Amino acid sequence: MKHKKPRIGIVGGTGYSGAELLRILIPHPGVHLQVVTSRGEAGQSLAEYFPALRNVLDLNFSDPAAAALEECDLVFFATPNGTAMQQVPALLQQGVKVIDLAADFRIRDAGLWSQWYAMEHACPELLAEAVYGLPEVNREAIRKARLVANPGCYPTAVSLGFLPLLEAGVVDPQCLIANVTSGASGAGRNLVPKLLYAELSENISAYSVPGHRHQPEIVSFLEAVTGRSVGLTFVPHLAPMIRGIHATLYAPLTALDADIQGLFEQRYAAEPFVDVMPPGSHPRTQSVRGANTCRISWHRPGNGETLVVLVVEDNLVKGAAGQAVQNMNLMLGFDEDAGLGGIGF
Amino acid sequence: MKHKKPRIGIVGGTGYSGAELLRILIPHPGVHLQVVTSRGEAGQSLAEYFPALRNVLDLNFSDPAAAALEECDLVFFATPNGTAMQQVPALLQQGVKVIDLAADFRIRDAGLWSQWYAMEHACPELLAEAVYGLPEVNREAIRKARLVANPGCYPTAVSLGFLPLLEAGVVDPQCLIANVTSGASGAGRNLVPKLLYAELSENISAYSVPGHRHQPEIVSFLEAVTGRSVGLTFVPHLAPMIRGIHATLYAPLTALDADIQGLFEQRYAAEPFVDVMPPGSHPRTQSVRGANTCRISWHRPGNGETLVVLVVEDNLVKGAAGQAVQNMNLMLGFDEDAGLGGIGF
Amino acid sequence: MKHKKPRIGIVGGTGYSGAELLRILIPHPGVHLQVVTSRGEAGQSLAEYFPALRNVLDLNFSDPAAAALEECDLVFFATPNGTAMQQVPALLQQGVKVIDLAADFRIRDAGLWSQWYAMEHACPELLAEAVYGLPEVNREAIRKARLVANPGCYPTAVSLGFLPLLEAGVVDPQCLIANVTSGASGAGRNLVPKLLYAELSENISAYSVPGHRHQPEIVSFLEAVTGRSVGLTFVPHLAPMIRGIHATLYAPLTALDADIQGLFEQRYAAEPFVDVMPPGSHPRTQSVRGANTCRISWHRPGNGETLVVLVVEDNLVKGAAGQAVQNMNLMLGFDEDAGLGGIGF
Amino acid sequence: MKHKKPRIGIVGGTGYSGAELLRILIPHPGVHLQVVTSRGEAGQSLAEYFPALRNVLDLNFSDPAAAALEECDLVFFATPNGTAMQQVPALLQQGVKVIDLAADFRIRDAGLWSQWYAMEHACPELLAEAVYGLPEVNREAIRKARLVANPGCYPTAVSLGFLPLLEAGVVDPQCLIANVTSGASGAGRNLVPKLLYAELSENISAYSVPGHRHQPEIVSFLEAVTGRSVGLTFVPHLAPMIRGIHATLYAPLTALDADIQGLFEQRYAAEPFVDVMPPGSHPRTQSVRGANTCRISWHRPGNGETLVVLVVEDNLVKGAAGQAVQNMNLMLGFDEDAGLGGIGF
Repeated sequence: MKHKKPRIGIVGGTGYSGAELLRILIPHPGVHLQVVTSRGEAGQSLAEYFPALRNVLDLNFSDPAAAALEECDLVFFATPNGTAMQQVPALLQQGVKVIDLAADFRIRDAGLWSQWYAMEHACPELLAEAVYGLPEVNREAIRKARLVANPGCYPTAVSLGFLPLLEAGVVDPQCLIANVTSGASGAGRNLVPKLLYAELSENISAYSVPGHRHQPEIVSFLEAVTGRSVGLTFVPHLAPMIRGIHATLYAPLTALDADIQGLFEQRYAAEPFVDVMPPGSHPRTQSVRGANTCRISWHRPGNGETLVVLVVEDNLVKGAAGQAVQNMNLMLGFDEDAGLGGIGF
Repeated sequence: MKHKKPRIGIVGGTGYSGAELLRILIPHPGVHLQVVTSRGEAGQSLAEYFPALRNVLDLNFSDPAAAALEECDLVFFATPNGTAMQQVPALLQQGVKVIDLAADFRIRDAGLWSQWYAMEHACPELLAEAVYGLPEVNREAIRKARLVANPGCYPTAVSLGFLPLLEAGVVDPQCLIANVTSGASGAGRNLVPKLLYAELSENISAYSVPGHRHQPEIVSFLEAVTGRSVGLTFVPHLAPMIRGIHATLYAPLTALDADIQGLFEQRYAAEPFVDVMPPGSHPRTQSVRGANTCRISWHRPGNGETLVVLVVEDNLVKGAAGQAVQNMNLMLGFDEDAGLGGIGF
Repeated sequence: MKHKKPRIGIVGGTGYSGAELLRILIPHPGVHLQVVTSRGEAGQSLAEYFPALRNVLDLNFSDPAAAALEECDLVFFATPNGTAMQQVPALLQQGVKVIDLAADFRIRDAGLWSQWYAMEHACPELLAEAVYGLPEVNREAIRKARLVANPGCYPTAVSLGFLPLLEAGVVDPQCLIANVTSGASGAGRNLVPKLLYAELSENISAYSVPGHRHQPEIVSFLEAVTGRSVGLTFVPHLAPMIRGIHATLYAPLTALDADIQGLFEQRYAAEPFVDVMPPGSHPRTQSVRGANTCRISWHRPGNGETLVVLVVEDNLVKGAAGQAVQNMNLMLGFDEDAGLGGIGF
Repeated sequence: MKHKKPRIGIVGGTGYSGAELLRILIPHPGVHLQVVTSRGEAGQSLAEYFPALRNVLDLNFSDPAAAALEECDLVFFATPNGTAMQQVPALLQQGVKVIDLAADFRIRDAGLWSQWYAMEHACPELLAEAVYGLPEVNREAIRKARLVANPGCYPTAVSLGFLPLLEAGVVDPQCLIANVTSGASGAGRNLVPKLLYAELSENISAYSVPGHRHQPEIVSFLEAVTGRSVGLTFVPHLAPMIRGIHATLYAPLTALDADIQGLFEQRYAAEPFVDVMPPGSHPRTQSVRGANTCRISWHRPGNGETLVVLVVEDNLVKGAAGQAVQNMNLMLGFDEDAGLGGIGF
């Protein structure tokens, strides 16, 4: 029997992004979950691995080597960096659309990519075709794309926060600062000491301050969109919570009489997943927990020349799997918000 | 019978700062805890109120109206803002030394103080005499002081992080940014919704971005010390942990060839409670939990012109009660680190 | 214009149960949310009070005194104990169905109720009519009920864990022990010190060990269902998490050769929201977070005579609002799982 | 130069118990920390590995193979089970006293030990000599011991809670239940998924319900002390906190008119580290955080026949390193509470 609904594959279904894709795609009204791969858990039932899926999904993990991904209409890669680029060319050739949640197609410059990811790119010829999957900027291109590079969790929050200001030219693009803080799931399901409960609880610390891979991703994207050179100091932190990103952005205001509130409201007036809060607000990560929403407010402390923008998102939803499904909806012709109506809690 | 050891009083013993003073002062070898007041718990045993003190301390809370504070050699005020200033003049007159952990004497300009604390100052004539209790700057003055204004938790971290740079003149003092994050105890034991477990857990949010009282405190102090005008954007956040402050400081480097590591190491070479970490370090708040240590490192992301300084402290220790005891040690002639040898955990 | 969908009212919309009702009812396909009351927030927009509802719901809180609850088809009470009983008689008379999430109608014996809740019951004549809203036992009665007493969070977990054993008569009903642990939201949005982040984090403690109101609720219900006298030691604990209940149940096994796994599986074979795990399992509260599922496993440590049953649920979902919507679905003729398809995370 | 103070060695200094030994021993007035071994970190500075020790301790990890442990007066083993027994015979022969924080010498019956620890015992001849290091029972034997088996974290809490009742014969020793809950550090610094922040936070679950190694340890010990057969159902749980054990103990009361409060108070009247709380109390794990205190209360819910005893301790202090130092103090002739005066917070 043939499924009428588009068939979806997930490569790498045991990490946090893969699990979140499952949570969103299983109740999605328009798609059929065809195959979920895992190198380590091949053959095991997904419901055994994720007890939350018991009585919800009857499917086993496939071996990535044997999975018939070419039978899918669209495949998500929720794999470590460097995996998708090995398989994407063949899949595209067989007419399968691809959304990569890792970093393989996020930076157009293969040299810059290699420098930050410490490997040769396997298919640099696809970098120009890949569409950066931020619907608030690339909606129409995403609709037609074969290959979408799903943005990183930090870049989504930081880009959405700075974009209206840069597009309007009201801040100095050379002196941007992004002070960002993420919950533990943003670091993936890696067995490293700093992610142990006893090490991360009751602790805040910055990491990768000398240089984090999301910095060139953000800069490349913002420069491509605005056509201007961008200087960004980017400092990520890890905080004791499971989900959530809070970005505190600083920019020198060059147009002191600009209507900042109006600027943000107009830019995102038609966006279903960006919420510009009333003036004076302080968004909370809890308010977007589990939701595909990015919530933004701004301040001018002491009425000074430094503009402060506050952005929150759920790193696993708008910062990863939710945005990936938003992109899928565009690529497959569904309503953009199909399956994404969950309310934060 | 007369005690040979100096007699210590604590006004306001039921909040988090008061409790932390007890934790540090009870095992302190040189002092005698004479009186602890509480309006709400007068007459109750401290050990009943704080089970951790059972079998450790045999003392009841005194009614603040009736407590013979004048019999103490030194009194700590761990009270809400505006309380200490009502009682301090009389105590000083009776020869009692005072350390105020609240904000009553932290800002020398009575007008500026009133503007931020929304009340008239009760004894503006004492503001000039009060010594700002940051031993790393005012050690000798503290030794001779009758009245010490214990610094706020954020100002301690932010000032210690910026000081060496400002003193050496290697950054632009007009464009400082302090992005600070505190655990819940920094907000005190207030029964407000945002401090409930279910609201604060799994949440990060900024607060008071338009203006926080610690901003003028820091600016006043840094300007007084350096003799230069200071511009500071200060953005505090609340994170799901009990204790700990993490400050991420940003400053435009004006002397690009300055030896930043050397500068920090020299400035704090003789300081028992400031630890300059090796280059490239990322301090963790867990490493100072319960300790009177302030731990500092610095970075130049991408070798650019923005200097990033990372500072951690325990907001209740070096950020409040520990620093207060350090000040007491100086005022009473003890070793500066007496009773402060605890190791973070 | 008239709504075809049943109109729903919520009395007491600002507590955690009320908020969770909103999270579940807003996307519910079959109902129209007509009125949400709040004494303290009357007139305010729900979306302003709950930022997670921004762009999702356009409704203001009504004053409970002025709210036209009689125009609703069904009203939920998410109020403190003793509120619903004041309003329910009039609503029933006007043909409005009621589900009370508080304790007003959970115990049939008005004298026993008064003893535990320290007030006179306002409408004892309705106690016999009220149906205890545990669908796994009272499904048919709930379908026809005008008034449903939604079970307490602990009683749902404890009853579902013990029921199959008591019905089958394989344990001694006189010596039951329920050691239960709840997250903070189970204690409601009360401004009391023990619910502050700094007091609850890094802490476990039992409470109300001499006697907790859920003990007589469980005993009354289990005795009514099984027709046998029940002896239950009930010890609740508070743990540092937002959501989740874990019940560890102990019972002396009297039928040593009983097929316990078979017994549980048969009892709940047709139940959409009870999941009997494979032998040897240890359910995790995370696996039911946000879901209306109760997950159960059992053990016989050392193959001895003490049976241990482990039960997890989300205290706000199957333990409160989710079960209330399950009851509403039965009362209004919807599919029992309408709006309750969320997957735990 | 020769040290007058006893020289102390720690084998296995990088786990949580080893780190806690360091936190307690470094400020200990009577001992000299001579050597700390680590297989993985040999040669590295302890202060580099534990930033909390910067400026506090100047010592490098030794290679366990090369460490001159025989030059120590007393050696702690904070190693995985099965390590100490390989080295202890030689050390004892060289006159070095040993305290093993692992399980190698906790069970006297070598067969029973092998059954639970899945290996042959390397020196069964020492099992009879080893003293179980619970000072509240074995104080005099510990003073004279060459080899002390430091009790497990759960057994300390459970034994201290049941002991007075069993010694007095007021409960049925055949039907004991211990429902215990531990923070993450109790599971050690193991890189397993269930200890990751994102898996353990917002989660409670039981584990090892079919059989946990601390069950035979407790039973063996209680039987040896009381000379009676003991039946114990033991169910451990993991909760989202770093430190702390909460034990909820259940026992059928056989002497219904026994003075339980008096019994507990008399039993522990002279004990410096056991605190019997007033009747009706609910101890909090926070109250013993960082302290070597075991805090106990009891209840008779509904005035029934089931006695409930509540016990809290810090699993790393009274449950491990603190108790080990208490034992060391006895073995080396120090005051029993030397170095153990820290107040919980």
